[in-house]
Amino acid sequence: MADTPVKDTARTEAFSDGVIAIAITILAFGIHVPTREESEAAGGLLNALAYHWPEYFGYFTSFLVILIMWINHHRLFRLFRCVDHNFLIINGLLLMCVSLIPFATDLVAEYLRQPEANIAAMVYCVLSLVIALLFQVLVRYAAHQRRLLMPSVRDETIAAILRQYRFGPVIYVVSIVLAALDARVGIGLIGLIALYFALPSHRDEIVRPTT
Amino acid sequence: MADTPVKDTARTEAFSDGVIAIAITILAFGIHVPTREESEAAGGLLNALAYHWPEYFGYFTSFLVILIMWINHHRLFRLFRCVDHNFLIINGLLLMCVSLIPFATDLVAEYLRQPEANIAAMVYCVLSLVIALLFQVLVRYAAHQRRLLMPSVRDETIAAILRQYRFGPVIYVVSIVLAALDARVGIGLIGLIALYFALPSHRDEIVRPTT
Amino acid sequence: MADTPVKDTARTEAFSDGVIAIAITILAFGIHVPTREESEAAGGLLNALAYHWPEYFGYFTSFLVILIMWINHHRLFRLFRCVDHNFLIINGLLLMCVSLIPFATDLVAEYLRQPEANIAAMVYCVLSLVIALLFQVLVRYAAHQRRLLMPSVRDETIAAILRQYRFGPVIYVVSIVLAALDARVGIGLIGLIALYFALPSHRDEIVRPTT
Amino acid sequence: MADTPVKDTARTEAFSDGVIAIAITILAFGIHVPTREESEAAGGLLNALAYHWPEYFGYFTSFLVILIMWINHHRLFRLFRCVDHNFLIINGLLLMCVSLIPFATDLVAEYLRQPEANIAAMVYCVLSLVIALLFQVLVRYAAHQRRLLMPSVRDETIAAILRQYRFGPVIYVVSIVLAALDARVGIGLIGLIALYFALPSHRDEIVRPTT
Repeated sequence: MADTPVKDTARTEAFSDGVIAIAITILAFGIHVPTREESEAAGGLLNALAYHWPEYFGYFTSFLVILIMWINHHRLFRLFRCVDHNFLIINGLLLMCVSLIPFATDLVAEYLRQPEANIAAMVYCVLSLVIALLFQVLVRYAAHQRRLLMPSVRDETIAAILRQYRFGPVIYVVSIVLAALDARVGIGLIGLIALYFALPSHRDEIVRPTT
Repeated sequence: MADTPVKDTARTEAFSDGVIAIAITILAFGIHVPTREESEAAGGLLNALAYHWPEYFGYFTSFLVILIMWINHHRLFRLFRCVDHNFLIINGLLLMCVSLIPFATDLVAEYLRQPEANIAAMVYCVLSLVIALLFQVLVRYAAHQRRLLMPSVRDETIAAILRQYRFGPVIYVVSIVLAALDARVGIGLIGLIALYFALPSHRDEIVRPTT
Repeated sequence: MADTPVKDTARTEAFSDGVIAIAITILAFGIHVPTREESEAAGGLLNALAYHWPEYFGYFTSFLVILIMWINHHRLFRLFRCVDHNFLIINGLLLMCVSLIPFATDLVAEYLRQPEANIAAMVYCVLSLVIALLFQVLVRYAAHQRRLLMPSVRDETIAAILRQYRFGPVIYVVSIVLAALDARVGIGLIGLIALYFALPSHRDEIVRPTT
Repeated sequence: MADTPVKDTARTEAFSDGVIAIAITILAFGIHVPTREESEAAGGLLNALAYHWPEYFGYFTSFLVILIMWINHHRLFRLFRCVDHNFLIINGLLLMCVSLIPFATDLVAEYLRQPEANIAAMVYCVLSLVIALLFQVLVRYAAHQRRLLMPSVRDETIAAILRQYRFGPVIYVVSIVLAALDARVGIGLIGLIALYFALPSHRDEIVRPTT
C-alpha cells in the first residue's frame, strides 16, 4: 500500500488547461448584444452598449483573474513530478471553483448598479478566497515530504512560494469586508491584485520553476 | 484481416479529455443568476440565491461525479497500449453519456422540489448506471485476450478492477429504486458514492496502473 | 517559393480535436429540460420528456455522425507527415462544417414533426454531403504527388481510401433526394450510414494507417 | 533578476489552441434556428432561414478570420523557444480579444440591416485592429534582443514578418473609416483580407518558420 504515484502530469495539465480555457472563453457569454428594443429605449445602440459597461468591466477583470490563475497553475505544475489521487481531487476542486467564476462575474455585472451589489460582490470575493486557499492546499500537499516534487526543486523555492501565498488569503478577506461596505471597492481590489500580477515589473515575484 | 490496432492512445485521450473537460465546465450553465424581478419577489438577492440551492447541490454532485469518472478514465488508459475501432466506439458511447450529465443535472435541479422529482432523479440514476456499465465494457473489451493492454499490465490487476466494477452497477440499480421512492435519497446515494471515491482514505481502491 | 511545409501535425490535430470535441459536446444543448408549465400541459414530466424524442434521436444520430468523423479524421492524420497552408484551410473548412452540425441537428429536431420537416432534413443532408466532399478534397490534396504523406504510406492505401470515399457523396445525394420526399427517411439514411461505420463487423473497411 | 525564461511553449500553445478552438466553435451559437412562429410569419421555413443571412455571412467571415489568426498563431509559435511572464500576458490579451469575436459577430448580424449598422461594424473593425496590433506586440516583444526566439530563426525572417505586419493595422484603420460610412463595406473589407490570406496563391506571404 506504499504511495506509488503515477509518473507524469501531462494529462492532468491537459485536462486542467481544457477546463480553464473553457471557463475563460465562456466569460464572453456574459456580454450581451443589446436587443433592438433596448437600443431604441436607450436612445441608440451606442447608449445601449455603454449601458452594459459592467459586463465589459466584469469580462476584463475576470479574464485577467483567470489568466493569472492559469499562469500560476502552469508554473506550479513545472514543480511537480507526478500526481496521486488526493492531488487530483484537490486540483479538481480548484477547477470547480474556477469554473464558477463566469457565474460570479455575471452575478456582479447584473447587480453592480442595484442596491444589493454588495451581496453579489461578496460572492465573487469569497470565491476568490476559496481559490487562493485551494492553490495553497495544492502546493502544501504536493510539497509535504516532497512527495510529488521534481528532484530538482529546492526546498527554498517551495518556502518562497508559500511565503508569498500567505498574503493572498489575507487580501481576499479584506476584499470581502470592503465588498460588504462598497461592492465596487471590493471588486476593484480583486482587479487591482490581478493587474499587479499581470504588470511586467512584478514578474519575478510570481512562482517560477527552479532552473 | 488480422487485428492490427493503431499503436498509441494519445489522441484518443486528448479527445476524451476535451469532451469531459467541456462537460464538466458547462455544468456551471445550470447555475442561474437570479433576475432582478426574482430577487424582488423573493425578498432580496440572498433569498433568491438561497432558493436556487438545488442548482448548487446538483453542480457540486455532478462535478464530483464527472471528476471521478475522469480520474478513472485517466487511470484506465494507462493500462492500454493502443486503441482499435470497436474500442473507439465504446469510448465514444461513454463520452456521449458523460455529455448528458449536465442535462440530467439540470433536470434534477429543476424538478427536485416538484411532485415529479422521482422521474428526474431516476433519469439521472439510469444514466449513471449506463456509464458504469460502459466503463465495464471498455475494460472487458480491452482486456479480452489482452488485445489492447500494455505488456506490463498483470492479469491480476485487470481481475481486481473487474471485481471492483462488479459493485458499481448493483449500487446504481439500488439508487434507481431509491430514486423511485424518494428522489433526494436516490441522488444522495450517487453523491455519496462519488464522495467515497473522492475521499483520501480510499485512494488505494480505485484503478491504478501496475508499476 | 518551393513548397517547404511545416514538419509536424501535432498542433493541427490538437486544434481539430478541440473543435470536434466542443461540437460533439454542445450537441447536448439541443436537449431541453421541459419547463414545469410544459410538463403540466403534457400531463406529467414523463409525457413531456417523451414529447421531446426528436431531440434525443437527433442527439444520438449526430453524436454518432461526429464520432465517426473524428475517428476518420484521427486515422487520416496518421497518414500525413506535415501540413501546409492550403491543407490548413481545407481542414479549417471541414471543421467549420462540423461545427454547424449542432445547428442542423436542432433545426431537424425542431421541425421533424412540422409540415416543413423536409427542408430541415435537406439542410442536414446537404451539410453531410459537403463534409464528405471536404474529406475527399483533404485526402486528394495531401496525396497529390504525395506532398504531405508519410514515406511509409503505400500508394495502394490512398487508392483504397479514395475508392471507398467515392460512395459517400453518392449516398448523401440520395439522402438529400429522400429527405425531399420524407424527412425521416433522409435523416434515417444518414443515421444508418453512421451506424454502419460504427458497427464492429465493418471495422476493417474504414481508413487505417498502413503498418 | 536575470531573465531566465521557462524552456518550452507546449502548454501555452495547448491553452491558446483551447481558447481559439472554443471561440471558433461557439460562433455557431450565433446561427439561430427560426422558431415555428417566425417561420409562419415569414411565409415558410425557407424564407425564415433566408432572412437570417447576416448570421451565416457573419459565421463564415468570422470563422475564416479566426482560422487565419490560429494559423498565424500556430506559425509564429514555431519561432519561439520559450515564454516568459510578459509574453504570457500579451498572449492572454490577444486571446481575450479573439474570445470577443463571437460577440462582435452577433452584434453585426443583429444590426446589419438596422440604421445603426455602422456602430456595430465599427466595433468589429476596432476589435480586428486591436488584435492586429497585439500580434505585432507579441512578435516585437519576443524578438527584442532575440529573447524568446529559437536560435535557428534568422533576423531577416523577423524583419520580413514585421514588414508584413506593418500593413495590417493600416488596413484595419481603413476598415473602421469605411464601416463608419457603410457597415457592409467595412465588414466586407475584413472578409476580403481573410479571404486573401486564405487563398492558395498567397500562401508564401504569411508567416513561416525558417527551415
